[in-house]
Amino acid sequence: MSEQLYTTKEAMLYSQRTAQLSKALWKAVEKDWQLWIKPYDLNINEHHILWISFHLQGASISDVAKFGVMHVSTAFNFSKKLEERGLLKFSKRDDDKRNTYVELTEAGSQLIMRMNEHYHDTPHCILDGSLPLRELYGRFPEFLDVMAVVRNIYGDDFIKIFERSFKNFKDNFDQVHSSARQ
Amino acid sequence: MSEQLYTTKEAMLYSQRTAQLSKALWKAVEKDWQLWIKPYDLNINEHHILWISFHLQGASISDVAKFGVMHVSTAFNFSKKLEERGLLKFSKRDDDKRNTYVELTEAGSQLIMRMNEHYHDTPHCILDGSLPLRELYGRFPEFLDVMAVVRNIYGDDFIKIFERSFKNFKDNFDQVHSSARQ
Repeated sequence: MSEQLYTTKEAMLYSQRTAQLSKALWKAVEKDWQLWIKPYDLNINEHHILWISFHLQGASISDVAKFGVMHVSTAFNFSKKLEERGLLKFSKRDDDKRNTYVELTEAGSQLIMRMNEHYHDTPHCILDGSLPLRELYGRFPEFLDVMAVVRNIYGDDFIKIFERSFKNFKDNFDQVHSSARQ
Repeated sequence: MSEQLYTTKEAMLYSQRTAQLSKALWKAVEKDWQLWIKPYDLNINEHHILWISFHLQGASISDVAKFGVMHVSTAFNFSKKLEERGLLKFSKRDDDKRNTYVELTEAGSQLIMRMNEHYHDTPHCILDGSLPLRELYGRFPEFLDVMAVVRNIYGDDFIKIFERSFKNFKDNFDQVHSSARQ
């Protein structure tokens, strides 16, 4: 019985520590994010949908919902608003009639790139709070245990989309900056 | 210039990875939390206020706000509602007239303990998602890099309150379960 009790205690302590930490981290991220996107008249969901569409280069609404960790109806409704603003367009694919796909319009892509250029115009407490770790270890933290937990909860697909979007982010960044230098 | 560019790229990649990961982690935590507290007619802010008041044993509204990562007005308004339900009481301290303190009533403490007893009645995807790490390392992950970032953002005070509340959590757990065994 004490084995069982110990486990219950350990589990509760762990999950409540995690709850507290993840709330604090997310609230800091959310604040940075809101400050960054404020001049562009977007909310976090809308920006997240644009960001995902940009980096996945043709995502279904269900991909957007899954990767954006939002309800499908939220993803759909905000995508509609972005379509009305001329930033996103909907399409069907011949090989997949069931899903609705979204992709950025030219105006949507321009907006995402303009926002990225102005990323450092607003403060990012996540960056400031991570600099001491970067100085210590020579790189920003990777949160490998968070990654592992997220992978177990959301599945390999989530992590695949995650890696794909950040690979695209890197490539796109290099492309934009190499053409800027020419 | 390429040094500068590299840093900008690294910083953006890092902070957007962190945004994505922390959103995913928090949304999972939030879902677990909501399922757990649903039968008790509390929202997350209300439960968080009770939880903090329980573990800090006499917290000011500004402590609650700080540690709960909510606005002072949110902490105050929800505390008022909890007071109306007879779960929390307000007080002033002779040595600190400026701050309002909150503490649990007997009914509030009973509620928190009853909720803790029923913690494992609902699924916790955070726990399930962390079990493979526990099996691998013999303990749950500690998210030390998240802790370090949170400490840098919110300050040492935040971490002190964090440690104090979890120390109380442990002591209280042992006490409840040792008296249950007698």
